[in-house]
Amino acid sequence: MTKVGIYGSAGRMGRAIATIANEEGVTVAGGVDAGGDAAALARAADVLVDFSTPAALEANLAAAVAAGTPIVIGTTGLTPAHHAAIDRAAERIAVLQTGNTSLGVTLLAVLVQEAARRLGPEWDIEIAEMHHRHKVDAPSGTATLLGEAAAAGRGTTLGEVRVDSRAGLTGARSEGTIGFASLRGGSVVGDHLVVFAGEGERIELGHRGEDRTIFARGALKAALWLAGKPAGRYHMAEVLGL
Amino acid sequence: MTKVGIYGSAGRMGRAIATIANEEGVTVAGGVDAGGDAAALARAADVLVDFSTPAALEANLAAAVAAGTPIVIGTTGLTPAHHAAIDRAAERIAVLQTGNTSLGVTLLAVLVQEAARRLGPEWDIEIAEMHHRHKVDAPSGTATLLGEAAAAGRGTTLGEVRVDSRAGLTGARSEGTIGFASLRGGSVVGDHLVVFAGEGERIELGHRGEDRTIFARGALKAALWLAGKPAGRYHMAEVLGL
Amino acid sequence: MTKVGIYGSAGRMGRAIATIANEEGVTVAGGVDAGGDAAALARAADVLVDFSTPAALEANLAAAVAAGTPIVIGTTGLTPAHHAAIDRAAERIAVLQTGNTSLGVTLLAVLVQEAARRLGPEWDIEIAEMHHRHKVDAPSGTATLLGEAAAAGRGTTLGEVRVDSRAGLTGARSEGTIGFASLRGGSVVGDHLVVFAGEGERIELGHRGEDRTIFARGALKAALWLAGKPAGRYHMAEVLGL
Amino acid sequence: MTKVGIYGSAGRMGRAIATIANEEGVTVAGGVDAGGDAAALARAADVLVDFSTPAALEANLAAAVAAGTPIVIGTTGLTPAHHAAIDRAAERIAVLQTGNTSLGVTLLAVLVQEAARRLGPEWDIEIAEMHHRHKVDAPSGTATLLGEAAAAGRGTTLGEVRVDSRAGLTGARSEGTIGFASLRGGSVVGDHLVVFAGEGERIELGHRGEDRTIFARGALKAALWLAGKPAGRYHMAEVLGL
Repeated sequence: MTKVGIYGSAGRMGRAIATIANEEGVTVAGGVDAGGDAAALARAADVLVDFSTPAALEANLAAAVAAGTPIVIGTTGLTPAHHAAIDRAAERIAVLQTGNTSLGVTLLAVLVQEAARRLGPEWDIEIAEMHHRHKVDAPSGTATLLGEAAAAGRGTTLGEVRVDSRAGLTGARSEGTIGFASLRGGSVVGDHLVVFAGEGERIELGHRGEDRTIFARGALKAALWLAGKPAGRYHMAEVLGL
Repeated sequence: MTKVGIYGSAGRMGRAIATIANEEGVTVAGGVDAGGDAAALARAADVLVDFSTPAALEANLAAAVAAGTPIVIGTTGLTPAHHAAIDRAAERIAVLQTGNTSLGVTLLAVLVQEAARRLGPEWDIEIAEMHHRHKVDAPSGTATLLGEAAAAGRGTTLGEVRVDSRAGLTGARSEGTIGFASLRGGSVVGDHLVVFAGEGERIELGHRGEDRTIFARGALKAALWLAGKPAGRYHMAEVLGL
Repeated sequence: MTKVGIYGSAGRMGRAIATIANEEGVTVAGGVDAGGDAAALARAADVLVDFSTPAALEANLAAAVAAGTPIVIGTTGLTPAHHAAIDRAAERIAVLQTGNTSLGVTLLAVLVQEAARRLGPEWDIEIAEMHHRHKVDAPSGTATLLGEAAAAGRGTTLGEVRVDSRAGLTGARSEGTIGFASLRGGSVVGDHLVVFAGEGERIELGHRGEDRTIFARGALKAALWLAGKPAGRYHMAEVLGL
Repeated sequence: MTKVGIYGSAGRMGRAIATIANEEGVTVAGGVDAGGDAAALARAADVLVDFSTPAALEANLAAAVAAGTPIVIGTTGLTPAHHAAIDRAAERIAVLQTGNTSLGVTLLAVLVQEAARRLGPEWDIEIAEMHHRHKVDAPSGTATLLGEAAAAGRGTTLGEVRVDSRAGLTGARSEGTIGFASLRGGSVVGDHLVVFAGEGERIELGHRGEDRTIFARGALKAALWLAGKPAGRYHMAEVLGL
């Protein structure tokens, strides 16, 4: 069985990974947290998963490169400097970095991009999402990721067309915009819906997260897929063969 | 058969009423528009329906009062002065004024108020709506009406608790707020969804308008119900026996 | 704090109740399972919650009656003989028996009954539900409970009007029927949607269960409400003040 | 402007096409019905659209072949003999036959096939649909078409895996099956939802038809695309560039 090493093993994601590892057909080679021996773990594992902190990322990458061990990076809050470090590491080892390790969201983004590419500009695109009451920002990172996919399908960038909310005297909708709508409440893990609204019909492409283990599950699937791959920077969509 | 007179008979709603009158079991006594003989129509009809303009309302009310004929008012954009005139007329004849003549929306508002009354403050309330691309304001009047029903059920007013959109660094949700989210696109007649999000479960109460004849249909049902009633100001919920 | 005693404390619901008791403002007086001392627990507790088995119910009821302690019964699979025993106990102590302890479902059933009562027979009623892949029967007990509420609102019984599924050459829909549609898949805790479909508009009343603790939570709310009540047979809707 | 000839011009679809032709940038060259001059219309038009009857199809095809005019066939209820005739005609002229001319449904089927191909067998597939109360069969032809797309994505045929409804003591779900659930009521034009239910997450891909002009609109888009094409049998997905 593939041996997975976990950076950030005491965090919520790290513990979730340990819980479901057997189910997903992998062995946990071990885990480290701030102050732990990143190098030893990198040597012991067939593939690494990083859900630690941006501050720890550089040391973890260095350990992975030194040991020649592929690494999946699910840590969020990365800056351009982190991405540059990831690019350098990817010249030496296989690296897969993603803002959302759920397989469902990954596939949805691919379908959204395809739909946006095929449907003409007379189909309006809107994105709604709902999350629990504790979330402090809107729209969600995943909604933004889906908006970027839609914009790419339209041959533009999200920055050019995004409308973060519609409230007040907005005037009629401008063609080509992508609107967001965010709901907050209860304990909702995360629901997303992308609406393509045409004349007389709508296509609705959505995802519902039922519990947070989907992120651990997707990270392990990515790790299994990445183990043994040559150096390079990979993406979640490739795990689905896309 | 009940004879219905239509003020604003050449407008979209006026024409829709004429189209479905037979189906709903009423006869159209006639219709007038700007400059027409409001008084003659009021005398000829058993009940009046007004979908004209705020400017025409006062003359139409006067004709109804003079003839002693009940009147359903679905004209939108009314000011406090119009409402005062309606109150005065209601001392002499039966008047039913409403911002939404759909029976479905009317019932939904009643259910939303009841749900808000029964569920504790740990259930968060959010309201999403989608309308066609030509709509120029947000949230919709119907969403606002539903928010007022929810606020009333909570023993407060919408003005105290409304959050018109959630975007940017919003911070965690404040208990007791009612949030709105508006989507625009395509040819959507009007969809509304009120979400009550508790710990581990959600109640979702929604309405989908498929075509605009529902407003004409509800106005005729209201007219049939109002015909023969004594003076007073009535509400759509009463048409449903609520 | 109210002291709650749990019959069936080692089962899934019993353990869930123990986990969230503090959150809900109650103390667990203790728990017993098959072979435990039901009588001692009944004396130690302010109110009892039974999620044991039909076989254990009679002894638990006897203990509750002997101690004069109110009891919430969430055990499922009860026969008419069990209900007769519950009725006898309810002459001596407060008893609340229910097939679904979720507050959300309880409220939804009340709203469905009200909607069915107010909308004329030209509004068709359909009920869809989705549950995880392991569920062995369809439609779900909760869907049936919602169908009974709708039928009661229409002044009939579900047995008279139910259509368990629509497949094949069904012919046009018969007025007054209530149709069910069941989906199975994944790990869905339980989603229910009651659709009232009229001419040109739909009302959709739904519930989404996100995790199974909602049943434990509702049972504790019922227990808190029942503690101190006089003898009688009570219902979940009363916990919501309905 | 492209000149479109309509077979079945007096039917619901034929009239809808005439109504929206200008909007879609085509001219109606004329129309014929039972007993009309199919040959003259075929010579006058750049492209033909057939929404007549299976009985009229053979004569219409012969006229199209004689004139060398491409033809879109949206007539339903075709037998294998009709399909054989279409195949023969397609050796001489461009023919596009489809069971659903809506662009939205066409795209949805492509997305469903792609999703089914990428997601492993641990994702369960279920298809729900709702139509108006007059529909006499279930599941809908479009739901079946979506099920076929899902089955193709899984490398099987729908006949092997379909479960037309789930009711009674069904037992746990069998892996690999595709379940259908049909709702009937009101005036619903046609809603379809394909659910991919995995462990802890769901992908939901849906289509809502708001009015029946979408079929006329899609047929005209197909006609514009087909005009001028060489002989061959084409499919709706190609109109979207797929």
